[in-house]
Amino acid sequence: MLEKIDMKKEVNPADYNERMAHLEIRMGELQRKCKELGIPIMIVFEGFEASGKGTMINKMIQPLDPRGFKVYTMEKENEEEKMHPYFWRYFIKTPAKGRIHIFDRSWYQGLENGKVTPEDVRQFERQFTDDGMVVIKFFLAITKKEQKKRLKALEQDSATKWRVRKEDRQKNKEYDKYLEQYDTMLIQTDTSNAPWTVVEAMEKKFAICKIMTIVVNRLEAAVAEAEAGKPEKILVEEEFSEDLKNGVLQGIDLSLSLEPEEYKKKRKDLQKRLGILHNKMYLQRVPVVLAFEGWDAGGKGGAIKRITQCIDPRGYEVVPVSAPNDIEKAHHYLWRFFEKFPKDGHLTIFDRTWYGRVLVERIEGFATEAEWKRAYSEINNMEAHLVKSGAIVLKFWLHIDKDEQERRFRQRQETPEKQWKITDEDWRNREQWEAYEKAVDEMVVRTSTKEAPWFIIEANSKLYARIKILEIVVEALEKVLK
Amino acid sequence: MLEKIDMKKEVNPADYNERMAHLEIRMGELQRKCKELGIPIMIVFEGFEASGKGTMINKMIQPLDPRGFKVYTMEKENEEEKMHPYFWRYFIKTPAKGRIHIFDRSWYQGLENGKVTPEDVRQFERQFTDDGMVVIKFFLAITKKEQKKRLKALEQDSATKWRVRKEDRQKNKEYDKYLEQYDTMLIQTDTSNAPWTVVEAMEKKFAICKIMTIVVNRLEAAVAEAEAGKPEKILVEEEFSEDLKNGVLQGIDLSLSLEPEEYKKKRKDLQKRLGILHNKMYLQRVPVVLAFEGWDAGGKGGAIKRITQCIDPRGYEVVPVSAPNDIEKAHHYLWRFFEKFPKDGHLTIFDRTWYGRVLVERIEGFATEAEWKRAYSEINNMEAHLVKSGAIVLKFWLHIDKDEQERRFRQRQETPEKQWKITDEDWRNREQWEAYEKAVDEMVVRTSTKEAPWFIIEANSKLYARIKILEIVVEALEKVLK
Repeated sequence: MLEKIDMKKEVNPADYNERMAHLEIRMGELQRKCKELGIPIMIVFEGFEASGKGTMINKMIQPLDPRGFKVYTMEKENEEEKMHPYFWRYFIKTPAKGRIHIFDRSWYQGLENGKVTPEDVRQFERQFTDDGMVVIKFFLAITKKEQKKRLKALEQDSATKWRVRKEDRQKNKEYDKYLEQYDTMLIQTDTSNAPWTVVEAMEKKFAICKIMTIVVNRLEAAVAEAEAGKPEKILVEEEFSEDLKNGVLQGIDLSLSLEPEEYKKKRKDLQKRLGILHNKMYLQRVPVVLAFEGWDAGGKGGAIKRITQCIDPRGYEVVPVSAPNDIEKAHHYLWRFFEKFPKDGHLTIFDRTWYGRVLVERIEGFATEAEWKRAYSEINNMEAHLVKSGAIVLKFWLHIDKDEQERRFRQRQETPEKQWKITDEDWRNREQWEAYEKAVDEMVVRTSTKEAPWFIIEANSKLYARIKILEIVVEALEKVLK
Repeated sequence: MLEKIDMKKEVNPADYNERMAHLEIRMGELQRKCKELGIPIMIVFEGFEASGKGTMINKMIQPLDPRGFKVYTMEKENEEEKMHPYFWRYFIKTPAKGRIHIFDRSWYQGLENGKVTPEDVRQFERQFTDDGMVVIKFFLAITKKEQKKRLKALEQDSATKWRVRKEDRQKNKEYDKYLEQYDTMLIQTDTSNAPWTVVEAMEKKFAICKIMTIVVNRLEAAVAEAEAGKPEKILVEEEFSEDLKNGVLQGIDLSLSLEPEEYKKKRKDLQKRLGILHNKMYLQRVPVVLAFEGWDAGGKGGAIKRITQCIDPRGYEVVPVSAPNDIEKAHHYLWRFFEKFPKDGHLTIFDRTWYGRVLVERIEGFATEAEWKRAYSEINNMEAHLVKSGAIVLKFWLHIDKDEQERRFRQRQETPEKQWKITDEDWRNREQWEAYEKAVDEMVVRTSTKEAPWFIIEANSKLYARIKILEIVVEALEKVLK
């Protein structure tokens, strides 16, 4: 995409002021329109060193209402960012509905240093465009000679000298090599949902006109599409097979139990080992994610407590997940979870999880069919990314039968200090038992991966369930930690 | 407070289980009650190394609903934190209404290394307790001998060896010196609104019982007070003098103006100098805060644009301030501003500011009299803290007269692409002109400090105002930056 372009394109000076004035007014109008329609917009600037990204961004934002945009300069990762999965610092900065977020450098740095693959990048962008986001990507191109000239000019000005790093001069020398690399990158990540625009950036007036024109055109198309109420494409997936329905939860032996004496002994031993492992995790900088799902009153809270009781509170966090708040709702549904993932060496326990998308949101209709159907692969990609970044991810479904649930509901209602735990909603959810069974089946089949397996826990006996979970956690950690 | 206590206090083992069971149930109940009443709670743990802060925190959080609390371990400041005012990392972590935030180490570290004074700390805590927060502070004390023993035990266990740093052993040797330092610290910061509890921590069972008891008692008192609807104390301030009323804005010569030719020349020169200064700011790591207030249609937006036009978008941010959202409302009113303050070397421009507390919130009754009256000194303290941390803080009031405002409102209504800028609210605010005049007078008098001065800008002529602001900014920066 870069090799045959004419980087020296110019704009007719006589037209420039008029065109810009028109584009600026249009940008302001479209920003307000997109805000109204709740369209999130992400604009990425990549390009050669000294190709003028900063200048272009500054010109582009002048007509915008500052209440609705933000510029992110993505320099080298800081300590905190290094201790998170690669996409973390980008994901948490993605715009809410109606906002414009502009990235000066972006996740494409990860392609240069091998932290992610072109496929990872395509999936990363895809999940947002599927969710209605407009992703606009600019690559600013200048010639080797021009780059050399600009770097020199920067160096000769005492106020800007510091901006030129040694590696920039080196990169200028190896311009041809980089041109080729960039070209490959652009080709591999030029998708229909998030296409690249190469900007010939020798002449600044031409470049800003082109950038503004593309933004205006893309936003106009998005507004038109939103106003027309374009139907969502539902992912064509292989139909969920009949044999699998009610399969996963059927083989479970809910009569398994444990005597209190044995429970105590085992618990003590496992908690002690876990305490040691928690220290090792911290020392060896391994992040751990434990995801708990299960029937209401399935015993998630009690099981989680048996894990946290014996470990240092400075190294773990329990994240209880309920309905998203307004700000969370205005983002991609995985955004609020991405924010919470542990940094290296820490443990995060989710009490309910991102699987809400294919459970309660599916069943209650909070997510459309298109949304929950594509969620399986989005979730698999996300968990694979966590694991690739070094995390251990274990997922538990706490399984009880309908009678046991009723027994526990009644018990909660009869115990004064537990009454707050039981609400009408719990009784209502219970009526959907069969729908949940089906959804759980499909979830376990579609998202049990080698990297992030599901464990179905026989939980009619609380003691049995707690020990089984502790065992799984301890064994998984012992396998990895030396 | 430390020198005469008996650190070896013990709890009767026969009572322990029963007392704990009772305290745990009560903690859970009080957490729910505080959530209902919207009481924010901050619990601080300080103490000798190896005094068991982690263990105590872990025991304390077991009965709590994880949806409502969070533990923060405040280790050494990271890069990002170092580039902000000292209190920044603590302020942004303060709890919203109804939440419990627990700090393992806290802002008291700043007293040890001289970054803040006892008076700073008292003011810091005071602003939150004035706002209805419960602040509970524990200091865990053990003897020199016990500390030595515990450090040794940690070192001998391979899983915990890494926790003992060289300085910990050194601190044990100089135990007496530290005891004295801590004692001074405790005495200087033991206030009626945020008192210390020294916890004798030799015996863990005694310590946790004491901690839980104190927490339960403090929360019970807070709940009782909230339910009784205790009246707010209104700060007794020297009455705002009659002579000062309508003083500040009266001497202003609104006929000052500038010819377009001269404007252009001056603007170009000033913008060029500002561009250079912006680079120097970055290099010399000086953060700059520009605060804009003024009458509706006073020309804030245009003036801000003349500042940002010529500088690198990677080093500045414009923060437009409107009514706080739900999450912001649940925090101290300065919280959302603290979050936005620039890091070292960056420029943040606020389009409307924290002064909303003593302007619109005062006039519309969104803040109580007690709240806006104490805001002056809270704001002065906050700005002094920014300046002490190295920031340049400049505040502008853009002043126009009532006729000029009407002219501008009508012009906006008649220009299609500006119509969105004018709302019924603007016309309504206009009816409060005299009330605003009075509030502005008092604001300028009470918050014009040497460190963070107010500049009243004659803004009937937009060109004149823009140049005057640019001049003030450029001159202030040139004075500081080499």
